[in-house]
Amino acid sequence: MTTTTAPRRGRPGYDRSTLVAVCVATFNRHGYDATSMGMLAAELGVSKSAIYHHVSSKEEILEMALGQALDALEAVLAEAEQLDESGAKRLEKALRSTVQVLIEQMPQVTLLLRLRGNSPVETAALQRRRDITSRFGRIVESGQKDGSLVTSQPPRRIARLVLGMVNSIVDWYRPGESAAEPAQLEESILRLALDGVLAER
Amino acid sequence: MTTTTAPRRGRPGYDRSTLVAVCVATFNRHGYDATSMGMLAAELGVSKSAIYHHVSSKEEILEMALGQALDALEAVLAEAEQLDESGAKRLEKALRSTVQVLIEQMPQVTLLLRLRGNSPVETAALQRRRDITSRFGRIVESGQKDGSLVTSQPPRRIARLVLGMVNSIVDWYRPGESAAEPAQLEESILRLALDGVLAER
Repeated sequence: MTTTTAPRRGRPGYDRSTLVAVCVATFNRHGYDATSMGMLAAELGVSKSAIYHHVSSKEEILEMALGQALDALEAVLAEAEQLDESGAKRLEKALRSTVQVLIEQMPQVTLLLRLRGNSPVETAALQRRRDITSRFGRIVESGQKDGSLVTSQPPRRIARLVLGMVNSIVDWYRPGESAAEPAQLEESILRLALDGVLAER
Repeated sequence: MTTTTAPRRGRPGYDRSTLVAVCVATFNRHGYDATSMGMLAAELGVSKSAIYHHVSSKEEILEMALGQALDALEAVLAEAEQLDESGAKRLEKALRSTVQVLIEQMPQVTLLLRLRGNSPVETAALQRRRDITSRFGRIVESGQKDGSLVTSQPPRRIARLVLGMVNSIVDWYRPGESAAEPAQLEESILRLALDGVLAER
């Protein structure tokens, strides 16, 4: 996804999705604010006008990438919410699917998690992210009510902390490079979130 | 710590530690790479040469702030390592103290956690951060050996995930604004890390 060479047809160039992927990798390396259209053009090896052939602004690229991440996260969460099971089971499903989305769409999710909220596109994405956290909180709350989850902590705080653990993987997990396979990582996260680390409670 | 007004003596100005605090807040708002000395001067309401009176470069400010965070994190970890107790108890002590440092030095730790490794100062700080994770991993490993912690997951992966949960608080916890007091947050993190969220294992 982050390759800088693209199949060449009539003349050198990129399709829109490859262009976005290269730009997202550049945003993640330097920070979105610090990345100029000139830097993106240099990274792509094309002129700025070649980029403007595909998108109208740097912000449009950001918006597309964030949309991909948020659409996927919201879709898997909706599936988990609709399960006719205990809160604990729905939380497990939501966490597993979220880990899978993070691994599959790591560049876009990394961009999302590092937003600072300095523009309307960013604040809108951060609002969608907060809504996702709230929906996790409601799953936790339903598990507290049906007795499947602990009731000693506020549900929204549990949601934030467990998602904090999940989200941290973009900082250190590299599929194909790290020792753990995605499925093993998913299992580790589940076991820690659900059972904790103490040998005996 | 992030106030932009300082006590005025002979002429308007900042002491060195206030200057660093204002600069760290600016780095966190815009990203370190995207923050110029001109932006820092504008934020401080002084000339660039007034900043150069205190520090030789933007990077020196970064290095001072990262040093504050890393020194504090390493010091509390050393205390936990020296406890003559089970691995679980040492992990508990290390986590509690780390949460306290994160809350007390939130701006500097936020800066540390968002580094991209684009300069020697950054890569050196990231190496110290990795060493801290390794030391947490060794505490977990000792707990697995003495039977106080679960052995179903690799110790370093446990360390990374639990620290991911802890570190996430810089993204959403605001002492004095958030509903939870620092001590309550510390307790929530401990309970989740140690016991998980399931009502019954």
